[in-house]
Amino acid sequence: MSFSAADHLYMQQALRLAALGLNTTTPNPRVGCVMVRDGVVVGEGWHVRAGEPHAEVFALREAGARARGATAYVTLEPCSHHGRTPPCAQALIDAGVTRVVAAMVDPYHEVAGRGLAMLAAAGIDTAAGLLASEAAELNKGFVSRVSRERPWVTLKAAASLDGKTALLNGQSQWITGTQARHDVQALRARSCAILTGSGTVLADNPQLTVREIATARQPLRVVVDGALQTSPDARIYGPEAPTLLVTAVSDTARHQPWLVHGIEILALPGVGGQVDLAALMTALAARGVGELMVEAGAGLGGALIAAGLVDELVLYLAPCLIGDTARGLFAWPELQSLADKQQLTWRDARQVGADMRLTLGISVRASGG
Amino acid sequence: MSFSAADHLYMQQALRLAALGLNTTTPNPRVGCVMVRDGVVVGEGWHVRAGEPHAEVFALREAGARARGATAYVTLEPCSHHGRTPPCAQALIDAGVTRVVAAMVDPYHEVAGRGLAMLAAAGIDTAAGLLASEAAELNKGFVSRVSRERPWVTLKAAASLDGKTALLNGQSQWITGTQARHDVQALRARSCAILTGSGTVLADNPQLTVREIATARQPLRVVVDGALQTSPDARIYGPEAPTLLVTAVSDTARHQPWLVHGIEILALPGVGGQVDLAALMTALAARGVGELMVEAGAGLGGALIAAGLVDELVLYLAPCLIGDTARGLFAWPELQSLADKQQLTWRDARQVGADMRLTLGISVRASGG
Repeated sequence: MSFSAADHLYMQQALRLAALGLNTTTPNPRVGCVMVRDGVVVGEGWHVRAGEPHAEVFALREAGARARGATAYVTLEPCSHHGRTPPCAQALIDAGVTRVVAAMVDPYHEVAGRGLAMLAAAGIDTAAGLLASEAAELNKGFVSRVSRERPWVTLKAAASLDGKTALLNGQSQWITGTQARHDVQALRARSCAILTGSGTVLADNPQLTVREIATARQPLRVVVDGALQTSPDARIYGPEAPTLLVTAVSDTARHQPWLVHGIEILALPGVGGQVDLAALMTALAARGVGELMVEAGAGLGGALIAAGLVDELVLYLAPCLIGDTARGLFAWPELQSLADKQQLTWRDARQVGADMRLTLGISVRASGG
Repeated sequence: MSFSAADHLYMQQALRLAALGLNTTTPNPRVGCVMVRDGVVVGEGWHVRAGEPHAEVFALREAGARARGATAYVTLEPCSHHGRTPPCAQALIDAGVTRVVAAMVDPYHEVAGRGLAMLAAAGIDTAAGLLASEAAELNKGFVSRVSRERPWVTLKAAASLDGKTALLNGQSQWITGTQARHDVQALRARSCAILTGSGTVLADNPQLTVREIATARQPLRVVVDGALQTSPDARIYGPEAPTLLVTAVSDTARHQPWLVHGIEILALPGVGGQVDLAALMTALAARGVGELMVEAGAGLGGALIAAGLVDELVLYLAPCLIGDTARGLFAWPELQSLADKQQLTWRDARQVGADMRLTLGISVRASGG
């Protein structure tokens, strides 16, 4: 499959449109569409939020009669099924589009190539794979949810250059600067859900809402509290955003203090009185959580990495040193050999205000787990 | 003072020449010289090693009669005193040079402006300050030694992303990759001396010599061993390079096992049976050590930073995680407030092979020390 320079430019434009839905489309993917006829853009569209029209519909509306004979550039394969909206593949056929270029095939089992097949069967020239990795990156949460049945998990951490997140006495505000903390707000805003643990709730009593950034939607907050040690009065259970409390306690009588506050509880008892974290990921994906951001302490963060459940680490490193007695990033059992270290892969490194933001991919540990 | 674009280009050329002496000029500064007449470079030179001619002499030799009426670009003020070589200022006057541009005034008290004054008194047009910060950076060791009477101290460390330098069981080879370790060789090669502590000698038995890089000179090795716990048979006392053993033990009878090996010993007893680190820096500067590289463990490294004796931190961060039980970067007493953290300033960040190399400046701690 070969694509022209013009194909690349129009798909980049479609990707930029798709990204306008970054903070709003959950649980749907971010999708953009550009319609081009005779070298002229005749329609643009992007998906805004679930239940509202898909990107192709907006682009077709703008194009009107000019859609006839046009090429449609879409960042994701047009849908072939009746969901909350009618299939876009049929709409493109009806409008007389003659060529459809998709950045990637939709991994969702209801589509999975059927959209492109429907178009081809109608005599439309179809192609896929143009800027595919950019499109997959934009929808890494959606892709993970529908193809792996678990969210794309990004663990955010902030530390001094010597890897310390707090003093031994617990003081942690602030190690990183205001711009790094603002950047964290942007990460929250795009996430479907934000996960934390009882330790963080007890120590910092955070709200974990999106502030500083205008948003029409607050991500779901997920609290992992195996033994129900948090207080129902903690700020994270406030009305500013929905909250899901996940516990290992199955006794529903003990759930009452949260239920009366309108907090949903999910009991997922695992080994040793801990929450079954793998089952939690499956449950969150089933609820539509694609991008999950973790803002937790060394215990839960370490446990998630050790369980192979974290895909990406975003570490804000502040230009300061705190010393060995302070609290570290990830709690694990002692390693006996460097061969057992958790390998990472660099994805990005950049300055954010006074701090450095390092983004790394996490592969499954060699030692299993 | 204003300089032309041509002035900048010629001084950059002189700085590149000066850098050719990076690994050899100690204890002298690295100096380059470019002679230009009528827009043509007529002579180039750089200082190679102490006792041999200065940069200006090589450039004048190459220029010959063409030096008459030329401009000399020198990265450091020409010397005015009779050292091991006659004064360069006089040589420039004798050759009929009509303009001298120096990147910086020589901070050495025997020169300190006298070179430029001697030239000006002979009717030569003189100027200083062109690319001064680049010149000062190239000779940060020399400048520190002659103006602060202590070396420029660069502390090198290598750690996992979570700030761990070794497993709890001591295993540390290797956390960083081969290219980072090769980069360390380059840092060693330019250093006047390399400092380590008894803990590192006992744990790793390192040689701390320059390998992998062709060099005509091995830096002085300095071992801080307050209680004389290392063995005279340790590899660091081998004949490959000179070694200075610094101890808090004043009893010369206990020095004998090293003296018979030809190892020099310096007794600098300080508080609590420790070596007086500030006195050590003064002593090293007096011996001609300008750039001092520290390759030590968390104890000595932490003590040097806490004492305000480290100017720069070079941290190689490997893309891996090791977990909280492992050994950290710097040992300090517990901080009670984040206000007491050691602030750093970013100087550079770049990928070195599989690892990230972060270079940061260290300012004096707010809490004193």
